[in-house]
Amino acid sequence: MERTEISKLGEFGLIKHIAEDIKTTRESTVKGIGDDAAVIDAGDKYLLVTTDMLVEGVHFDLSYAPLKHLGYKAVAVNVSDICAMNGTATQITVSIGISNRFSLEAVEALYAGINAAAAAYGVDVVGGDTVSSRSGLIISITALGEVAKDKVVYRSGAKDKDLLVVSGDLGAAFMGLQVLEREKAVYESTPGVQPDLDGHDYILERQLKPEARVDAVVMLEQLGIQPTSMIDVSDGLASEVIHLCDQSGMGCALYEEKIPIDPTVVTTASDFKLDPTICALNGGEDYELLFTVPIGDFDKLKGSPHFTVIGHMAEGAAQQLVARDGSMHALTAQGWDAFLNKESPESED
Amino acid sequence: MERTEISKLGEFGLIKHIAEDIKTTRESTVKGIGDDAAVIDAGDKYLLVTTDMLVEGVHFDLSYAPLKHLGYKAVAVNVSDICAMNGTATQITVSIGISNRFSLEAVEALYAGINAAAAAYGVDVVGGDTVSSRSGLIISITALGEVAKDKVVYRSGAKDKDLLVVSGDLGAAFMGLQVLEREKAVYESTPGVQPDLDGHDYILERQLKPEARVDAVVMLEQLGIQPTSMIDVSDGLASEVIHLCDQSGMGCALYEEKIPIDPTVVTTASDFKLDPTICALNGGEDYELLFTVPIGDFDKLKGSPHFTVIGHMAEGAAQQLVARDGSMHALTAQGWDAFLNKESPESED
Repeated sequence: MERTEISKLGEFGLIKHIAEDIKTTRESTVKGIGDDAAVIDAGDKYLLVTTDMLVEGVHFDLSYAPLKHLGYKAVAVNVSDICAMNGTATQITVSIGISNRFSLEAVEALYAGINAAAAAYGVDVVGGDTVSSRSGLIISITALGEVAKDKVVYRSGAKDKDLLVVSGDLGAAFMGLQVLEREKAVYESTPGVQPDLDGHDYILERQLKPEARVDAVVMLEQLGIQPTSMIDVSDGLASEVIHLCDQSGMGCALYEEKIPIDPTVVTTASDFKLDPTICALNGGEDYELLFTVPIGDFDKLKGSPHFTVIGHMAEGAAQQLVARDGSMHALTAQGWDAFLNKESPESED
Repeated sequence: MERTEISKLGEFGLIKHIAEDIKTTRESTVKGIGDDAAVIDAGDKYLLVTTDMLVEGVHFDLSYAPLKHLGYKAVAVNVSDICAMNGTATQITVSIGISNRFSLEAVEALYAGINAAAAAYGVDVVGGDTVSSRSGLIISITALGEVAKDKVVYRSGAKDKDLLVVSGDLGAAFMGLQVLEREKAVYESTPGVQPDLDGHDYILERQLKPEARVDAVVMLEQLGIQPTSMIDVSDGLASEVIHLCDQSGMGCALYEEKIPIDPTVVTTASDFKLDPTICALNGGEDYELLFTVPIGDFDKLKGSPHFTVIGHMAEGAAQQLVARDGSMHALTAQGWDAFLNKESPESED
């Protein structure tokens, strides 16, 4: 029998291949695979559905990720996908697979984080499954949300000359991971040495306990802005910009100098001899919202400290990064790919 | 730090413990944890949500479960939970974790089964996640469904003197598993010997490719029967009867002689020196519907070859099995418990 390695396709290639055979037939299915969440017609409004699976040793490392933070993060990444549709998360189901290495106290810590996130985001935990696993911890969460029919935002709606905008700043979660990995390596080679995490509060929190930008969705509404396309930044800015461009049939110009990067990311990147722009482009796990708005909305956005215009869409053009020196580079997705064993640990619907 | 082993609580104990800390706050959350599916108010009707996680080596054994059948079964068990609410399944999300042991062709086989089940049950695959796993295959499916608000059935609605009814027959999936395990053991001790599966078609199909009783939900509607309580038989009849009784605040009399068991289950049980009644009570994975109806509905049911009255509810009484010889026995749930390492491989919301 023929055998094709999955690594030949990569994660996105595999999903694309699987999706080719999947047709939807229900009238209520408005949008299936291919966006941050599925969209289902629920009468007065749209129901949103998204799901993420986190696997120990692949998506998280319990040697530095506290279980409580992990539970919080597992909820946040799903809520983030609902935000990316311009929606409000309402309910989640939580399935966990645990080996007998885990005690009741460990499960309690995990659920303390899940419940804290549920409270923070106003979502109800309405179901789940609890099974034993032969090795390690598996967390699979499905989030439901809702959005008014005229407010839903897809990846595919960007138009020529639309501004490309991102919330918050980028690259910090990736830098946090680098610090954690470094201190883990030190600890493993010299047991007893205390990890040196001083001064890294921001980037560590961005890695270990990211927040979904529920507040940004509310702010956009308050600013009277309806994005034309939107996605959350889970795999790195470059990968997400390419998704918006590809699904909208657009090229773009992304300006390196505009990419919002926290000063502590710049200094830490320097310690690691990494380019902070590369960290932002390819790091991932920022869970910021990347979206496009008509150019006429610029005035509504320009005063906000929460949003940064980083480029614009361009019909018929290439997908390009404009470097600080003015040179142009083709955007390429170097984000994490589970099946190619890249660096940043998040995946996509 | 204190350490309490999860095996001390068992699966149901763990779920109960976790659920104690979970409160729902959204107005749209009608029913959270504790039934076959969660119930969410979606305006004109109720939305149903259920999820199941299947883990290799715990819930299935790829040495005899073909991937295509496994994909089909993973969908069917979720659709079955929607049926148990008297609902119609509409959409599913499918998340899989796979190690590099799996080829693209293996993933294709799994999805061929998932897509076949989706087509058979009229559900759309609308999303999912595809991640790498360090060991083995993990399948996590969430099913959405819908039900008219006046048609939803919970586990908790059984009344005194209601008849206890089950669709189809019981114990076959468990006997199928016994045959598969026996032949696997023979093959492992004497490689090259062909497995002897002749004459076991029915019980093997019940184990490897069970069907959700979507047809039974339709039949109940056609018969003009609105069950007062319902659950699907995933953990064994005894466990499910106890769930209905406990959640409805009832005792019951379950008549051994009434339990529907296929003749091939009786003969195979005899080969294995097993009591077929015990197989039906504790085996599990039948995915039949167990429900209660007012005694006045007896005439509507009695002609149907698809439903069998196996007992009745009794307020203030014990939960009892009435054996063939008339002796009474307290019903006990000996169904599979992932954390106690019992025999039959299914778990519960």
